[in-house]
Amino acid sequence: MKLYHLIFILMATLNANAQKTQPNIARYTKVPAGYLMVLRQGDDILKEIENLAVAENIPSATFTGMGFVNITFGFFDFKTKKYAPKDFKDMELASLNGSIAWQKGKPSIHAHGVVTGKDFMAYGGHILNGSVSTGSVEIMVTVHDKKLERILEQPLGANVLCVGNCME
Amino acid sequence: MKLYHLIFILMATLNANAQKTQPNIARYTKVPAGYLMVLRQGDDILKEIENLAVAENIPSATFTGMGFVNITFGFFDFKTKKYAPKDFKDMELASLNGSIAWQKGKPSIHAHGVVTGKDFMAYGGHILNGSVSTGSVEIMVTVHDKKLERILEQPLGANVLCVGNCME
Amino acid sequence: MKLYHLIFILMATLNANAQKTQPNIARYTKVPAGYLMVLRQGDDILKEIENLAVAENIPSATFTGMGFVNITFGFFDFKTKKYAPKDFKDMELASLNGSIAWQKGKPSIHAHGVVTGKDFMAYGGHILNGSVSTGSVEIMVTVHDKKLERILEQPLGANVLCVGNCME
Repeated sequence: MKLYHLIFILMATLNANAQKTQPNIARYTKVPAGYLMVLRQGDDILKEIENLAVAENIPSATFTGMGFVNITFGFFDFKTKKYAPKDFKDMELASLNGSIAWQKGKPSIHAHGVVTGKDFMAYGGHILNGSVSTGSVEIMVTVHDKKLERILEQPLGANVLCVGNCME
Repeated sequence: MKLYHLIFILMATLNANAQKTQPNIARYTKVPAGYLMVLRQGDDILKEIENLAVAENIPSATFTGMGFVNITFGFFDFKTKKYAPKDFKDMELASLNGSIAWQKGKPSIHAHGVVTGKDFMAYGGHILNGSVSTGSVEIMVTVHDKKLERILEQPLGANVLCVGNCME
Repeated sequence: MKLYHLIFILMATLNANAQKTQPNIARYTKVPAGYLMVLRQGDDILKEIENLAVAENIPSATFTGMGFVNITFGFFDFKTKKYAPKDFKDMELASLNGSIAWQKGKPSIHAHGVVTGKDFMAYGGHILNGSVSTGSVEIMVTVHDKKLERILEQPLGANVLCVGNCME
């Protein structure tokens, strides 16, 4: 066994430990306006926001953020009512804007983002899926005091956040 | 008259009703940090923010948002002091950042945005005009307690938000 | 000496005075959620946020913003742990998202932005450096009540905002 094999195994072990110990690190803290989240390498962004909504019983919220991500955007086709997806790997998350509401008893996250790579060109849209890449994602969650629902509106075929007297 | 004509008329009527009943649906709700707005198909974005400022007598505010829009950006030419406009239709509003202040007794809205289409390429800048397309626009308005003015500064030729001892 | 020489000198003097008197104009004001900053032509954006953090003894904060800027983005190479920089001149700052924390007794600013030019194409990423161009930059700083540290994490090689029980 060569020296570089040993070094490789040692580094892989350190990496694995870093990954393993990540669950023990807090992902958010309470602040006057709501919660400040810091997600870590490998975290599922939408899932972590859903977990926060459930764990802290958040009635509704608006969030902003930024970080370093793998992300899937989808562009909504209003004829087929489906999203055409596209993946972007290892990109700066230049902006994140979204909201937390509820739909049929479950948290409903709506989030838009803009990402940039090595050439600084920007891409973005509706976030279908995203995880933290080699870095972190910081999210400021401003909590509201009213439980708000997202409702699938027809003939629009889109989920719309209801702030009063909506029709289903 | 053919069956599909009947179906077409029926659907057109339902659509028209959906449009008509939209005015009855609330566009915003009070939250601890200010107001959460949800604008709907056809709404004029800057006009609705102005209406909120007047109706709720907002001294000044900062806002963030996202949605689905038709939008006109303008790039300011500091020589001619004019905006070169460009329209974008049916785009995701990936980010919206702006402020509410007052100028000569009227609300003064300053807003920047980033939009993306089918190919996820991002475009953006200063918003001259925008309306909600097939979807909604969510805007979080964080209200401040001080009445702030926007002042046309010379030789800059640009309106600048004044947070203390500005010159006109 | 020709008339246009006189006019040129007069305008240069007015410009110089405008620049000189800028230091007397307030750069921020206290609001319920924190501070609203309005930076002015020539201001160093990251430096002004650092100054605010020190002057107002801000434990930690999240900020959003927009404006008109000269800016340098850097894309982090996780192999070399260095940023490849690129400059953009006289661009709209379509979005700004960042946070204030502390590192080794000094304010630590982490900020991402998106900029757009004449053709409305968007570019962005991690902000290494930025100044206000011919216009202003408005920043809403939402202040938190907990002093937070940014920690250089290994093997990541990146500074991560700590919201609880982090390892150095």
